[in-house]
Amino acid sequence: MKKNIGARPLIYPTPAVVVGTYDQEGKPNAMTAAWVGLCCSTPPCIMVALGRNSYTNENIQMKKFFTVNIPSQQYVKEVDYFGITSGKNTDKFEDVKLTPVASDVVDAPYVKEFPLVLECKLVDVLKIGSADQLIGEIIDVKADESVLNEAGLPDIEKVQPMLYAPAIRQYYSIGNHLGKAYSIGKEIKIADK
Amino acid sequence: MKKNIGARPLIYPTPAVVVGTYDQEGKPNAMTAAWVGLCCSTPPCIMVALGRNSYTNENIQMKKFFTVNIPSQQYVKEVDYFGITSGKNTDKFEDVKLTPVASDVVDAPYVKEFPLVLECKLVDVLKIGSADQLIGEIIDVKADESVLNEAGLPDIEKVQPMLYAPAIRQYYSIGNHLGKAYSIGKEIKIADK
Repeated sequence: MKKNIGARPLIYPTPAVVVGTYDQEGKPNAMTAAWVGLCCSTPPCIMVALGRNSYTNENIQMKKFFTVNIPSQQYVKEVDYFGITSGKNTDKFEDVKLTPVASDVVDAPYVKEFPLVLECKLVDVLKIGSADQLIGEIIDVKADESVLNEAGLPDIEKVQPMLYAPAIRQYYSIGNHLGKAYSIGKEIKIADK
Repeated sequence: MKKNIGARPLIYPTPAVVVGTYDQEGKPNAMTAAWVGLCCSTPPCIMVALGRNSYTNENIQMKKFFTVNIPSQQYVKEVDYFGITSGKNTDKFEDVKLTPVASDVVDAPYVKEFPLVLECKLVDVLKIGSADQLIGEIIDVKADESVLNEAGLPDIEKVQPMLYAPAIRQYYSIGNHLGKAYSIGKEIKIADK
C-alpha cells in the first residue's frame, strides 16, 4: 500500500558532482551539486539547477563556461565541504587542499584530483521557480588514464563515484553490478509474440 | 594525467527511473529514462529529456501529466525491457507482468510493484538539440510503507534503487553509506580561519 509523503524534490539516487567556475577576479571556485542531469545526447548537454543568487550561478552566467567534476568516494568530506560553504567568503580549493587546473577548452577550472570532468559551455538558462536551470553543452570530457577501460571509456568501478540521497541527505558509494543495459531486458520472454 | 575522451553525454552515476504515461486510447505505458534530474526545489520540479518522437514524449505533451517511478534493483530485467521496446508496438506492462495503477492526483499510471513514485504535471518544454526536455512539477510523492524510515521518509537502503552508467551501459546497485551530507564536510579543519 502506497502512502502520500508530500511533494518534495526526490530522486534515488542523484549523482553528487562538483561544478568548477572562475569568478570575475579569476579566483577558481568549486560547488557541489545534485540537482543535475544529462538533457540531450546530440549535442551532448547537461543541466545544472542552482539557486538564483548562488556564487557559482553568478560565475557561470558571467563567464559562460563551467566544468562538472565527478569525484571519487575518497573525497566525500571535501565534496560535502564544497556544498556547505560559499566561495563568496573563502577560497574553497585552498581550504580543502585540492588543485584547480585551467581547462584548455573552456574558461573554467577543473579539480585535478577527481578522475572525470565534463567541460561545458553555457547554451541556455531556464528560470523555474526558485532555481535557474543552466544548460551546458559538453565540449569535451577528460578522464584520468588510470580509470579507463580497454575501450578507452571510464570504468565506473575505477571512478568510484559518489551518489546522493535527497530527503534523508546521505552519501553512498556505488554497489554491485546488476546487468548490462540494452541487453538483460531481452531475457524477458513475451508469450504469443 | 588526464586524457581527452571526446564530447559525450556522461555522468557517473545517473538514476535509472521509469516514466509512466497514458496514450490517447488510455493504454498505460512505461519507459526507462536516465537523462533525468531534479531541477528546482520550490516548487519541486524534475526534468526528463526524451527523444523528440518517442511515444512517451508524445503521451506527456498530449496528456500534460506523467509519473516518475523509482524501481528496486530486483526489477533490473523489467526496467531494461521498458527501455528497449516501444509502447507503440506492444503493451509493456502486460509483457513484463507488472501492474499499472491510476494515480489519484495526476492523469498518469504508476508502477504498483516499484516502491517510490513522483506524480508530475507538465509545466514547461524546452527543445535542446535532438531532445525535448520536459519539466514536471512534482505534485505528490507516494512510497510503499515498507520503505519508510521512522521520520516517514524513504530509506534508500530499503528502496534499493538502480543506477546507470552511460558510455559503458551498465546497471549497478547502491553500495555503502559514505557519510551524512551537510555534516561530514564540517570535519575539515580550516587553518587560520
